[in-house]
Amino acid sequence: MKENERTEIKVSYDPSTGRVSLPPVSVIGLGMMGSALAQTFLKEGHQTTVWNRTPGKADALMKQGAKIASKVNEAIAASPIVVICVLDYGAVHEILEEAGEILAGRAIVNLTNGTPAQARRTAAWVTGRGAEYLDGGIMAVPQMIGNSGALVLYSGSEKVFQTYHPTLKGLGALNFLGEDPGLAPLYDLALLSAMYGMFGGFFHATAMIRSEQIPAEAFTELVVPWLQAMSASLPLMAQAVDTGDHRTNVSSLYINQTGFVNFIDACREQGISTELMTPIQGLINRGVAEGYGTDGLSRLVELIRKPV
Amino acid sequence: MKENERTEIKVSYDPSTGRVSLPPVSVIGLGMMGSALAQTFLKEGHQTTVWNRTPGKADALMKQGAKIASKVNEAIAASPIVVICVLDYGAVHEILEEAGEILAGRAIVNLTNGTPAQARRTAAWVTGRGAEYLDGGIMAVPQMIGNSGALVLYSGSEKVFQTYHPTLKGLGALNFLGEDPGLAPLYDLALLSAMYGMFGGFFHATAMIRSEQIPAEAFTELVVPWLQAMSASLPLMAQAVDTGDHRTNVSSLYINQTGFVNFIDACREQGISTELMTPIQGLINRGVAEGYGTDGLSRLVELIRKPV
Repeated sequence: MKENERTEIKVSYDPSTGRVSLPPVSVIGLGMMGSALAQTFLKEGHQTTVWNRTPGKADALMKQGAKIASKVNEAIAASPIVVICVLDYGAVHEILEEAGEILAGRAIVNLTNGTPAQARRTAAWVTGRGAEYLDGGIMAVPQMIGNSGALVLYSGSEKVFQTYHPTLKGLGALNFLGEDPGLAPLYDLALLSAMYGMFGGFFHATAMIRSEQIPAEAFTELVVPWLQAMSASLPLMAQAVDTGDHRTNVSSLYINQTGFVNFIDACREQGISTELMTPIQGLINRGVAEGYGTDGLSRLVELIRKPV
Repeated sequence: MKENERTEIKVSYDPSTGRVSLPPVSVIGLGMMGSALAQTFLKEGHQTTVWNRTPGKADALMKQGAKIASKVNEAIAASPIVVICVLDYGAVHEILEEAGEILAGRAIVNLTNGTPAQARRTAAWVTGRGAEYLDGGIMAVPQMIGNSGALVLYSGSEKVFQTYHPTLKGLGALNFLGEDPGLAPLYDLALLSAMYGMFGGFFHATAMIRSEQIPAEAFTELVVPWLQAMSASLPLMAQAVDTGDHRTNVSSLYINQTGFVNFIDACREQGISTELMTPIQGLINRGVAEGYGTDGLSRLVELIRKPV
């Protein structure tokens, strides 16, 4: 199949049968996430071919109608769109190098976790072999795949994204971030860091509450709406970051520095480790030491961008 | 005024004039927050007496109708309810010791930042002098006082809370947490730590996004709904904390440990300091090292409660 043929593959509707014809899809990698992807493509009605380096993972999928490829090249040859979800980019390259010539003209959709730089290198490698490359970051656990609550971020070939939109949207909500293939992993990891920060704060808060034997679940009735209310201040802080104007008349680094001393005292009194909070205190103190005491908390973004 | 008289003071409504009679209020401490409290009481129609250790801060309030006390005892004598909002508990005790006998029978509402242990000690001291004690934690910046968006948490004397509910609700939304005066500062600091965690995660995420010159404000269109979606998982994690059953089939410490390695690599590639993220990674690694690799992230709460 030549490239100009492949990119013409779209969902076609047959009015005589009322059926939609979907492109065949191949899924490389059958860990928890890869299996969830393959299962969703099968449910959506795609002819789905699967392959995994270590065999035996495809039994359940075979019962659901998947074709099992015995070699990776067989899997790649079976479909114009090849979805890869393996352990890391090292594994991606092993697979793609094995494929060689057969890659040309296909759409490679790589949903493997990696860094922006890895995604850019892989995109260059893949396009250099006559294939097209779309990178994706899955913002969901395997159990969520196929639901609208799952979000998948894409970047790279917009042509692949548009051509296979009807196929990709079966996996969950989707968002095309731009032609730079590094954007999907960048946003993916940025959103993850925001989540880890929120979870870390919640874990510390819950440890404090539990230090007085108060049920954590009752506390979530306060903390969840509180966090949602506080998240409303993020766009204003983002604006300060974009403009570089971090002045505030609300909550200066000085005020936060003062409050933090009392806060850390209280953690110690309650017998709670301060390991998730002292790094934030350290950053605030550094901001004050560098002369930004009257600035707002948004100034801290500049300090993170300038590693010590 | 005797105690049993004071606690009977309530808002009274005069049908002949249609006016509500509100109790006089005294405000001790006229920093940004104390001034905002006094201003709000004045707006609500309370006869408001104010005092500050260093004079000159009351000029604006005087123009709005506040009575300026020249001595702290004069301020305390002027009202059955005395709201204190000063720098720290050291300052609270200096003021209360100066007041001596005149405290008896009054409602002391202490909105000064402090720790649960400090609140309990102060409550014991105040009630030992024949007054009643309500502690409060203000979850708002001064600019928000008087709006429903401001939340004030109270604990200690429920009688004071009920008696002066019509007065206190003028400051913002309010929540009585229980008779233990330490609860308001405990919840206050717990909510603050949750906020700092979320902000820290957002700052790191924004630094990553800005490392590619992407506008931070555009990113908030993704990160705010993402955090709101992720906050829906907090009650389930709280349940795991309450029951001690941290098993998961969704996102184990092992899976998070693996993902974190790639994430930290990406931060370094982007030239971003990892100082807010490595403590979370350290906690995850510790959880795995202690044999909890198959548990979910909620297990981390137990590790924070057990300082290294």
